[in-house]
Amino acid sequence: MALLRLADLPTPCLVLERGKLQRNLDAMARAVARNGVALRPHLKTAKSAEVAKLATRGQAGAITVSTLAEAEYFARHGFRDILYAVGIVPAKLDRAAALRAAGVDLVLVTDDPEAAAAVAAHPGGLRALVEVDCGEHRAGMPVDSDILLAVGRALGAHCAGVMTHAGHSYGCKSIAEVAALAETERQVAVRAAERLRAVGLATPIVSVGSTPTALHARGLAGVTETRPGVYMFQDLFQVQIGSGAIEDVAVSVLTSVTGRRAGENRVLVDAGGLALSKDRSTATAPRDYGFGLVLDVLGRPTLGEAVVERANQEHGVVGAPTPLPLERLAVGTRLRIAPNHVCMTAAMYDRYHVVDGDDVVVATWDRVNGW
Amino acid sequence: MALLRLADLPTPCLVLERGKLQRNLDAMARAVARNGVALRPHLKTAKSAEVAKLATRGQAGAITVSTLAEAEYFARHGFRDILYAVGIVPAKLDRAAALRAAGVDLVLVTDDPEAAAAVAAHPGGLRALVEVDCGEHRAGMPVDSDILLAVGRALGAHCAGVMTHAGHSYGCKSIAEVAALAETERQVAVRAAERLRAVGLATPIVSVGSTPTALHARGLAGVTETRPGVYMFQDLFQVQIGSGAIEDVAVSVLTSVTGRRAGENRVLVDAGGLALSKDRSTATAPRDYGFGLVLDVLGRPTLGEAVVERANQEHGVVGAPTPLPLERLAVGTRLRIAPNHVCMTAAMYDRYHVVDGDDVVVATWDRVNGW
Repeated sequence: MALLRLADLPTPCLVLERGKLQRNLDAMARAVARNGVALRPHLKTAKSAEVAKLATRGQAGAITVSTLAEAEYFARHGFRDILYAVGIVPAKLDRAAALRAAGVDLVLVTDDPEAAAAVAAHPGGLRALVEVDCGEHRAGMPVDSDILLAVGRALGAHCAGVMTHAGHSYGCKSIAEVAALAETERQVAVRAAERLRAVGLATPIVSVGSTPTALHARGLAGVTETRPGVYMFQDLFQVQIGSGAIEDVAVSVLTSVTGRRAGENRVLVDAGGLALSKDRSTATAPRDYGFGLVLDVLGRPTLGEAVVERANQEHGVVGAPTPLPLERLAVGTRLRIAPNHVCMTAAMYDRYHVVDGDDVVVATWDRVNGW
Repeated sequence: MALLRLADLPTPCLVLERGKLQRNLDAMARAVARNGVALRPHLKTAKSAEVAKLATRGQAGAITVSTLAEAEYFARHGFRDILYAVGIVPAKLDRAAALRAAGVDLVLVTDDPEAAAAVAAHPGGLRALVEVDCGEHRAGMPVDSDILLAVGRALGAHCAGVMTHAGHSYGCKSIAEVAALAETERQVAVRAAERLRAVGLATPIVSVGSTPTALHARGLAGVTETRPGVYMFQDLFQVQIGSGAIEDVAVSVLTSVTGRRAGENRVLVDAGGLALSKDRSTATAPRDYGFGLVLDVLGRPTLGEAVVERANQEHGVVGAPTPLPLERLAVGTRLRIAPNHVCMTAAMYDRYHVVDGDDVVVATWDRVNGW
């Protein structure tokens, strides 16, 4: 059978470099092992059973998910220890309980006393973590809040521990700042667990983590697990906050040149706002990549400074700040685009085309989207 | 059988108000009829056969699409006159020809002489429009460019006419400015057709259109058809550029409150960056709606000024600039969020839950995503 190559794929589509993925997984496994905690990788980025299997190799198989659709998908693929890390609502408890009835140790999350009471009252034998805020100001109560104990008491025997997420580590300007924030994340989680234990509640799980803090934490005493996710693939934003190098970005969008703007040194590609997402997280980073960095078909930065300057629904406009012979690219030329924020970009696709250092597609791995 | 209500649906999901959709379709049909041209609605927003059937009722059934996946989907649903309005690349010609072989009058688009030659050389008997730029500076050559004739000649007998798109109408500050741009769009298309006819090329199709210019054009002499799309649903951005009223926004995201931030008058919802998209088109509009305007479960603006201030992957943070009793909303409360840019938001979902003025789901309509 003839080899399938990137040139044979309809564009736009998603390309995953297996070697880079493996290097990213190894780097995180080393960082987490150094701190003596368990790695419960967050699969919200990859949403793929094949990636999850690689990410949990040598681990206990524990994972984190961001939707019940992910929980159900990973359960079908044999995962049995799943943390659903978005605040639970009562209407979702029956779906959660169905997973527990099927043998999945599904752990929920809440920061609300009424939702906690609903978890405890549900006949499905559900458990939840109390979510506490370590400064991100998204979900969770302040660690010294009375609400912490109210949620814990509402859960009672259904309390599985505590969790926090230093998502504001994405705003750090240096590794030292990330390390300091990782220590805050640790302290908040440990303090929350201590407060719950002081009133007689069990907290077997003390869960923290984001890619920057998991990589750069200098100690995680009292913590049981960390939940990074985007490290598997890396992206242009993560590279700029020190989570990896540009060579580590493992996922890109394969696209075709659809037109050339004569005299402007610009080309159009069939990767627009849907293929790349409208995420502009690099707008405030040291280097603004527009809607993505343009690479050649082998994923090499041979087009210099070329970026996707504009993204309409199905049109991307590629330009370069310094003169580059973009117009030499014929219509149909294949390029690859490294994403600003890979969680957003990958979510537009139902599969990965896996390559390993060249243009041969060695595997196709599915993804789960939706809710 | 018990009625299905919005309270029964898993969140986040997509809600479509049938009555508003019909009003929007009627308003556009009247505007287009007034100018005596055909309406070839762009289905890139709706991506739904049921919506397409309503949008072409009383019309010839001609539609516009933005991907070959859409073309194939609509062909399966009986549509036979389809314009694929994104620059064609040679590798996609076989898929296009398969549709023509199946009886679909599929018309392609190009602005490139080499791509045009590939269309003409393909054995599938394909036709294409020459795309010309009327000032958007995306695809298409300037109307007086030599490239216009080069593309037309390369197509030869495969030339089906011309097309242009005044996408820059989205930047207009008044209806008068939109009307002036519609006249430019018309003139450019007609002039392009005249130049091609002068060298003996057939141009049966002279195609223009965007929602603002289709609604506000004061005459379309020489044009044969217009291709608006987002008018069917409207959104917060279109409302601000005069394409409709806030009451016309027909699509919203149903979401659930997942947490409350005590003392901040903020709540969290399970509609984040994936459920809403990261589109921030209202950031530069008169009114910045963040990531969307928060409505009650019936789609009414009873929460005043509340908007989604932040959107992480699965978390939306809802706040209000003026004090509102958001904290009275219990976890599990259902809300609806009107989108900034409905083309981007709807693309995250595989179906519409159709309602008609209340909370009863009267139909479920599928969508086609991907490429």
